[in-house]
Amino acid sequence: MFLKPKEQVDSTESKIVDNLRALSIDMIHEANSGHPGICLGAAPILYTLYAKHLRIQPEDSKWLNRDRFILSAGHASSLLYATLYMAGFPLELEDLKAFRKIHSKTPGHPEYGITEGVEMSTGPLGEGVSSAVGMAIAEAYLREYYQKKNKNLFHYYTYVLCSDGDLMEGSSYEAFSLAGTLKLNQLIVLYDSNKISLDGKVSQTYTVDLEKYFQSLNWNTITVDGEDFVALDNAITKAKSSNLPTFIIVNTTIGKYSQWEGSNQVHGTPLTEEDITSIKNKLNIRDIPFTVSSEAKEEMQAMIQNRMKKEYENWQAYVESLDDDTKQQLVKMKENDLSLDHLNIHYEVSQDETESLRESSHKILNSLAENNPFFLGGSADLSSSVLTRLDQETDYSSENRLGRNLNYGVREHAMGAIMNGISLSGIRNFGSTYLAFSDFLKPSLRLACQMNLANIYLFSHDSISVGKDGPTHQPIEQLVSLRATPNLEVYRPADANEMIGTYKVVASKKQGPSAILLGRNRTKVKTNTSINDVSKGAYIVKKEANQLSAILIASGEELDLALEVALALEQKGYQIRVISMPCMELFQKQKPSYQQELLPTGVKVFVIEASSSYSWNQYVSNQNYLITVDQFGYSGEKEEVLAEFGFTKEKIVEKIETLLR
Amino acid sequence: MFLKPKEQVDSTESKIVDNLRALSIDMIHEANSGHPGICLGAAPILYTLYAKHLRIQPEDSKWLNRDRFILSAGHASSLLYATLYMAGFPLELEDLKAFRKIHSKTPGHPEYGITEGVEMSTGPLGEGVSSAVGMAIAEAYLREYYQKKNKNLFHYYTYVLCSDGDLMEGSSYEAFSLAGTLKLNQLIVLYDSNKISLDGKVSQTYTVDLEKYFQSLNWNTITVDGEDFVALDNAITKAKSSNLPTFIIVNTTIGKYSQWEGSNQVHGTPLTEEDITSIKNKLNIRDIPFTVSSEAKEEMQAMIQNRMKKEYENWQAYVESLDDDTKQQLVKMKENDLSLDHLNIHYEVSQDETESLRESSHKILNSLAENNPFFLGGSADLSSSVLTRLDQETDYSSENRLGRNLNYGVREHAMGAIMNGISLSGIRNFGSTYLAFSDFLKPSLRLACQMNLANIYLFSHDSISVGKDGPTHQPIEQLVSLRATPNLEVYRPADANEMIGTYKVVASKKQGPSAILLGRNRTKVKTNTSINDVSKGAYIVKKEANQLSAILIASGEELDLALEVALALEQKGYQIRVISMPCMELFQKQKPSYQQELLPTGVKVFVIEASSSYSWNQYVSNQNYLITVDQFGYSGEKEEVLAEFGFTKEKIVEKIETLLR
Repeated sequence: MFLKPKEQVDSTESKIVDNLRALSIDMIHEANSGHPGICLGAAPILYTLYAKHLRIQPEDSKWLNRDRFILSAGHASSLLYATLYMAGFPLELEDLKAFRKIHSKTPGHPEYGITEGVEMSTGPLGEGVSSAVGMAIAEAYLREYYQKKNKNLFHYYTYVLCSDGDLMEGSSYEAFSLAGTLKLNQLIVLYDSNKISLDGKVSQTYTVDLEKYFQSLNWNTITVDGEDFVALDNAITKAKSSNLPTFIIVNTTIGKYSQWEGSNQVHGTPLTEEDITSIKNKLNIRDIPFTVSSEAKEEMQAMIQNRMKKEYENWQAYVESLDDDTKQQLVKMKENDLSLDHLNIHYEVSQDETESLRESSHKILNSLAENNPFFLGGSADLSSSVLTRLDQETDYSSENRLGRNLNYGVREHAMGAIMNGISLSGIRNFGSTYLAFSDFLKPSLRLACQMNLANIYLFSHDSISVGKDGPTHQPIEQLVSLRATPNLEVYRPADANEMIGTYKVVASKKQGPSAILLGRNRTKVKTNTSINDVSKGAYIVKKEANQLSAILIASGEELDLALEVALALEQKGYQIRVISMPCMELFQKQKPSYQQELLPTGVKVFVIEASSSYSWNQYVSNQNYLITVDQFGYSGEKEEVLAEFGFTKEKIVEKIETLLR
Repeated sequence: MFLKPKEQVDSTESKIVDNLRALSIDMIHEANSGHPGICLGAAPILYTLYAKHLRIQPEDSKWLNRDRFILSAGHASSLLYATLYMAGFPLELEDLKAFRKIHSKTPGHPEYGITEGVEMSTGPLGEGVSSAVGMAIAEAYLREYYQKKNKNLFHYYTYVLCSDGDLMEGSSYEAFSLAGTLKLNQLIVLYDSNKISLDGKVSQTYTVDLEKYFQSLNWNTITVDGEDFVALDNAITKAKSSNLPTFIIVNTTIGKYSQWEGSNQVHGTPLTEEDITSIKNKLNIRDIPFTVSSEAKEEMQAMIQNRMKKEYENWQAYVESLDDDTKQQLVKMKENDLSLDHLNIHYEVSQDETESLRESSHKILNSLAENNPFFLGGSADLSSSVLTRLDQETDYSSENRLGRNLNYGVREHAMGAIMNGISLSGIRNFGSTYLAFSDFLKPSLRLACQMNLANIYLFSHDSISVGKDGPTHQPIEQLVSLRATPNLEVYRPADANEMIGTYKVVASKKQGPSAILLGRNRTKVKTNTSINDVSKGAYIVKKEANQLSAILIASGEELDLALEVALALEQKGYQIRVISMPCMELFQKQKPSYQQELLPTGVKVFVIEASSSYSWNQYVSNQNYLITVDQFGYSGEKEEVLAEFGFTKEKIVEKIETLLR
């Protein structure tokens, strides 16, 4: 490969790159914290992408048909901010100086919603590359959806810069292997191959033959020298015309020009002042912090505008020429409003019949899918068990980009990350697995919560009532772990009525993640459960006759048991109120008067939920009042397993009676 | 490849295999639940392994030098139980009939500690293969450790049977790629390639060229036909002499002989009676449930004993000839007692000086490592940040099996699974990452809790006090998620004294997992903190002068703040008690009298912990009394971030004063 030494590179180009380098290390120096190594090494990659390839409009950072760029190596945030600044995004030098300061536009790792031009929050390795696969899936769907209507609205690429850590994480393998199967050819991943990780040489822990690896996953691969701007440019051009996703190995030097060049000392520690001076001397940049060549800045912006101005304006004009419905849809998409347009759930429930919650969910999902084309989803190889198939829809595949059933395979973690990418692309989507396996995708779910994405997680088999599959399949601590995760609303509806209510609330949300928990077993569709009261989080299902003796709170499958217990206690002379609490988060947002109305001070409260007690301590005066599960379950008939933990009418009645006496 | 049709196979061999098939489907039929597909397809693999290769002694299932077999495809449990029965492990026909019944020896997925011959709990896909890598790491360590002392005690292979789901899971890629780097040549993975997953054809979601994939990871690969017993046998023989780990692709037919042969309908649903009859006819087995050919059973046991009897007896005799110390060590290992022998922590703490908790931990780890050769561990590329390096020890590598620093790379999930494998092999070990990233390894941690393994998790950067790295790196819900996980003890010591106390408790445990949380920042080594009281979970650090006004509970880095708050409140005339609670689980195990002594009824309790409130509701009468964090944090100076959430002396004093008035 032809290698152009630094001296011979077009001077404007190298000036831009060197300004990116200098700005990055100045930011890290000012913050006294950050990762200079990757910024010095990977600056040519960001320059080449932004100046020569990314179809973006910095003044309209949310332009729907823009190319996406994901900094999966989130620790290179200062380089990204410097690039966005130089490219003309709304960032000032003052913002760069506030790097890693509270409430600044330039937090330590890129945060979605804080900085224009940042497409998603990154930092936890593996997440960015995996979500990029979701963006590529969504792009192909949007492109073909509108093409079929003879509208050429979407055609964009998704680019990623990743590091060795992203490649070592298993989630990236899950996502990469799916991207290969799906032949997502508009996905281009650039790998900053600097051979150094936090603890030392990458070769000590990671020796994968990457060309062979990506070829085995059905990817196209290219290898270039990171200092060779021409080769980098050509590689990206070539990648764009590939019929497979492309992985570009860019050989770089960590901490380029630093005294620690090539070593792990430069990974995550600010450089010394002497080192910064020495680097700036080498780069021929004045040794005053935050010095920027205005010529370089203007040239970089000109390079973008020369490519993009016309295309952007044409696209806007084209949209103007379209029908109002489409225009409205695009406005909604741009505002990242993911509420479904049609909430009419035409599914009649026969009262007093039994139906499993996953069956109810299945009918509602299909009903919602009918008139909402930007609603799709799938499962990590459990669609036939969680019952999440959209029966009237086809499978998404390399040949069918309009399929609305996503078959993720046994890849829970990548599913979580891909869901994020799809939501970020303006498509409402759900993913599903068993609740016990929600652990596998927790890192991605957490990021969705931080970005407040409207993902819908369908977690079935939601307690020890799973029965025979045993403790590995029986969730215990998962429910409280989800409830404790900020921004996530966790729904555990008790029957078909509450399931409808849950979907109504969830489907009408513009933003914000929801987890819907589905029991495995049949429950009675009750006369007293409510569709509308789900929005309050909790409500009275059975009122006491007169003087209240005690309140039972239950959720999900356990509501039937709570009602039976109440009946039995009433026969013994107690007056019992039963409250269904399908969504704790919503109940906690209600007015104190409503909370007090349901749970008057001084009345003994008992909780029946086959899950960790940690969720419920706040509602009872004493842990003895909790009928919950704090141990791992057993493999056995579900009735036997439940009985083992005291979940029988008789045992609960006895327990409550003792405590009421 | 030469294919022997069924008719031509040695009749005894095929009889054994067919008995395994018949028993498996009878068990599933009797339980009315299970996975017949893989049992019918993979029976020849288990037969070949157990009859011809596994170096085991069924009557001594914990023999230390046995080969390990991990059923990573845990849903094939009935096939494994049938095999163990036929091989002579202590299982009766009655046990097989009790498949998936509560408290039986034959639960739905294999459970460690329940069934002799089951090496670990499996079911969640990806876990078994990944833990097997840990077993291979441990074997090489043990082998060379004793060889260096001129004792030839250990030389065994680790075998795995995995399914497509195991390969799709990212954790397996993490573990496989590390196994390739480490050249763990005594690891042999057999892949039941039946091309069908729960939701349909594997090719719909997973098209990886497996030979190329494993070669890229530095593995040896072999492909065979699963019905060709000779080829299977030869492949395993060949794998044993490889200088790399070996992946054997065994082409099988899911649900072989069933009417649903080759389809996903046979994956997880019991067969019909007609189908069972038809299969048994094809196999020439009497159509009476649980009919076993005693000839086949005897032959299988003879095949094992002919290979193994002498070797086993020789090994036992050899052990008898060894010194008492070694014998004792081996007894301890066999009992899976992982307590460290030498608990003398020679590390003097200077009172009133400051030291970060990760620094204290580092000194203690090194002190413990000195005299305990069966103690090792590492980090997922954060050893230089969590400070977990054993400074006097070398790195574990393909050339150095005696290295006691394990460099996991950025592979948190595989680290968790590998830790399980190492613990199961009799070596006490720790793993480390940031607390926010504990999510990545949660599925493996959960399995460790189910198996009650003595893993030590070191999670640093344990709150929003991480500061500048921002919300992706700041844990919120992780702490309660860990506390809610059954069997796990979570320690959050407040200073060097409590850190010593924590390690003393943890290191002396024979079984059971522990998580030790380490703050990032310096805390004062306090005069009143206690080494010994950590074992009680909580204790009084500062007693009130006389009439108690309120109690403050704190843990970790927040204890200093609680003490400052107490002092300020006392200056305002309140009498405050401060309790440090380094381990909630241990406190909850104390006698009620001790609990009552610390927290007398009727006294207002406040909690200061920079983490989710869900942990603490049980200790306060009202959520207002919690100074906790239920939102995501910010990137900024740690003091500013803490202040944003009310973690300053002034704000807390003001809040408490208002509530005490």
